[in-house]
Amino acid sequence: MDSQTKLESLKGMFHPQSVAVIGATNVTERAGYNLVNSLIHGGFSGHIYPVHPRLDTLLGLKVYHSLAEITEPLDLAIIALNERGTVDILKDCGEKGAKGALCFAGGYRETSEQGAALEEQLRDSANRYHVPLIGPNTFGIISNDVNLNATPCPMHLPKGGVSFITQSGGVGLTFLHRAADAGLGINKWICVGNRCTFDFADYLAFLGQDSGTRVIGLMVEGTEKADEMVRAAADIGKPVVVYKVGRTSAVNFASMTHTGSMVGSYQLYHDIFQQYGLFQVTNLLEMIATLKGLAMIESPRSNRIGIVTHTAGPSILAIDELLNRGHSMATLTESTLEGVRKLAGPNPPFIAKNPLDVTAVGWPTEPFGQYLELLAGDPNVDIVLAFYCQQDLLGLPSRELIRVKEKTGKPMVACYASRAALCEPDRELLESKGIPLFTSPEEAAWAIGAVLDWTVRSTGGVSKRSH
Amino acid sequence: MDSQTKLESLKGMFHPQSVAVIGATNVTERAGYNLVNSLIHGGFSGHIYPVHPRLDTLLGLKVYHSLAEITEPLDLAIIALNERGTVDILKDCGEKGAKGALCFAGGYRETSEQGAALEEQLRDSANRYHVPLIGPNTFGIISNDVNLNATPCPMHLPKGGVSFITQSGGVGLTFLHRAADAGLGINKWICVGNRCTFDFADYLAFLGQDSGTRVIGLMVEGTEKADEMVRAAADIGKPVVVYKVGRTSAVNFASMTHTGSMVGSYQLYHDIFQQYGLFQVTNLLEMIATLKGLAMIESPRSNRIGIVTHTAGPSILAIDELLNRGHSMATLTESTLEGVRKLAGPNPPFIAKNPLDVTAVGWPTEPFGQYLELLAGDPNVDIVLAFYCQQDLLGLPSRELIRVKEKTGKPMVACYASRAALCEPDRELLESKGIPLFTSPEEAAWAIGAVLDWTVRSTGGVSKRSH
Repeated sequence: MDSQTKLESLKGMFHPQSVAVIGATNVTERAGYNLVNSLIHGGFSGHIYPVHPRLDTLLGLKVYHSLAEITEPLDLAIIALNERGTVDILKDCGEKGAKGALCFAGGYRETSEQGAALEEQLRDSANRYHVPLIGPNTFGIISNDVNLNATPCPMHLPKGGVSFITQSGGVGLTFLHRAADAGLGINKWICVGNRCTFDFADYLAFLGQDSGTRVIGLMVEGTEKADEMVRAAADIGKPVVVYKVGRTSAVNFASMTHTGSMVGSYQLYHDIFQQYGLFQVTNLLEMIATLKGLAMIESPRSNRIGIVTHTAGPSILAIDELLNRGHSMATLTESTLEGVRKLAGPNPPFIAKNPLDVTAVGWPTEPFGQYLELLAGDPNVDIVLAFYCQQDLLGLPSRELIRVKEKTGKPMVACYASRAALCEPDRELLESKGIPLFTSPEEAAWAIGAVLDWTVRSTGGVSKRSH
Repeated sequence: MDSQTKLESLKGMFHPQSVAVIGATNVTERAGYNLVNSLIHGGFSGHIYPVHPRLDTLLGLKVYHSLAEITEPLDLAIIALNERGTVDILKDCGEKGAKGALCFAGGYRETSEQGAALEEQLRDSANRYHVPLIGPNTFGIISNDVNLNATPCPMHLPKGGVSFITQSGGVGLTFLHRAADAGLGINKWICVGNRCTFDFADYLAFLGQDSGTRVIGLMVEGTEKADEMVRAAADIGKPVVVYKVGRTSAVNFASMTHTGSMVGSYQLYHDIFQQYGLFQVTNLLEMIATLKGLAMIESPRSNRIGIVTHTAGPSILAIDELLNRGHSMATLTESTLEGVRKLAGPNPPFIAKNPLDVTAVGWPTEPFGQYLELLAGDPNVDIVLAFYCQQDLLGLPSRELIRVKEKTGKPMVACYASRAALCEPDRELLESKGIPLFTSPEEAAWAIGAVLDWTVRSTGGVSKRSH
């Protein structure tokens, strides 16, 4: 199958108008049941055809006894049979004209030589019957363009511009939960499994052309085709954030018996990622903050940062990260400094500078907003970062931040020291206005750092990246 | 003041039976108001004496017009006056017999030469009137032994065995919020400010002897007495986790104008921390996970890990971190392997090994518990890690984990891929039974890694630490 055909196949599989779940069952703890449940809960916009030889209804849906019984066209076959049954059903899928299949079964090359031989049979069948496969040994896909949750996990996920490619279903699921907690909206999610038809490069090329995807996260254990993968990632013109597993060689074994691929030398991957300008992270928390920054912070003109902070310490952590990446604090104009001094009055309790530490102002949000407006209005400031410490019994300066952002038009990021639940309404408000909120200075810095790296690169400058 | 006197002073200041808030005010946005509010909200077990020259009542409390008006003994003076007023009031504090004072005002050596001169006056007054100071330029202290929240931020914090020393009030506050979200219980919290009477070494020595403190977190921007601090940390026989700010030299300036101390060479600090066996972290998220592990995971006999996992990927991330620190996966006995094979039945859908990947079992929690019991019961397993992926519509295996922990008596850690709010009841249940819960594999690994490092060190072994 050539690259263009693969791309077209993936477009079809991620925008199906109809899906069949082969191996649907009323045993609530099995994948075949939960896949149907996920499709219903997710509000899939197309038709759902559960398939089981003997059941008549499932979760309120008519059950079809075979694929042949479905009279309408079928776009995507979701196969929740065992490893042998999956091979056998591909003929039916082909005859039904399915544009592609998701194969959940494990038991192929990740387990044994016999498994590898069976995977060859699967590949042969897929080719013979013209049914491209995602998997086998996949945990599924999500395509929020059509509200398709084709995983065995019903979930409520915020929608957004981030797509995620994962080699591990469990790590990918963990990502989804943590991303939802962070308010990071997802567009597509792909668990690649054993990569029988499509490899990383194919998925990356697809997401590169996909209009719903602005930013891509990539979790890799290992692949024999690392070069191809990295070239594809570098070619698509969208930011790609990669998390490579496996610093220790002992992990290779565990990984091999899991996805059937050696994880390879960590250093080798690190170097090649760096060479091709991919963003690298070392844990899921950094992955989420980085993606959130790239997806939600508006592009600044350049990389000069202005900070107003309610207490100095958090801003120092952020500045440390940002300067370490080669970005710079804006040099405020004399007019801005004068404005700050004028606002602060005689005997000002702080120094007019950037970062502007207004600790002495206390909790009133109005002066905080006034100082923020002065700083954000400075022509030397390209991006604004506001730190504030919540006091349980007083409010947050979110409305001031929104006002200043709307007035100055500058990209803005908020970082509140607050309990997650306490600032959740403010997070939703701020993010609806394009101001992402973080609750630790490091996360804010990872997010801004990535955006500034991308800005510098896109505008032809040179960014010094630390890792 | 000699070391022993300092220790006794700190004991008194952290266990006061009465506190005065000098500079109490009815202006709700000022520190003097919020300090009184924090004391009341926190349920301080002693007497609270707000002091203001003209007010009569505040937040339902009688207000005293001067310290002299208070007829009962006074243990702790909380001073929310400006930098000049703070100097002047120390005489009254001394005459009243206060055991110590918290000085919130900034404007001393962190701002200017005049400020530094004023700080000298403050120091002289403290010595003359025998009133040891925390601060100036502190954000306060918390001592949950007596429900004392002497910060301007009313907060509801879980109680526990972790104490935190911070050079930055804002970073310390952020820590408190994130710790509360993670269910990490706090015992004492100290914002050191300009370290007029007490330095890091004094606070560390105090917490070393403090029965409520099991584990210590330390956030440092910089100090001229790094050697003293590190020796104190190494001497106290409790785990100390340190977060040193300032990889870039430019941060030195921002830090100097904040706490009046140069941050110093990052590499130098790194090396000396490593030499003295302190735990080092590079962000607050890692700090919290590490402290949570050290505070909540029971001490294992040795460092051989057993893992049962609902999907392989997360376990690989954890194993990578743990092997990288020099720990090892337990070699299961033949009897355990036989038990696993017997339970799995003919044609087992997974390999009997450690980590035990039971993906094929699906979501039923009962078999998950049975496999966990087999693994935890293995004599070669010292500590147990259980990974599980939540399915929104099905339960979590928390009761199985608790049952197995109670039966085997082995330390256990849970890691659930789940939304924070969704698994919150399970977190509380598990943690009440001594099983800390994490929601990402890296956090679980940081926590376990620290405990195993500490175990190896305490039992005389050699741990290879990665950073």
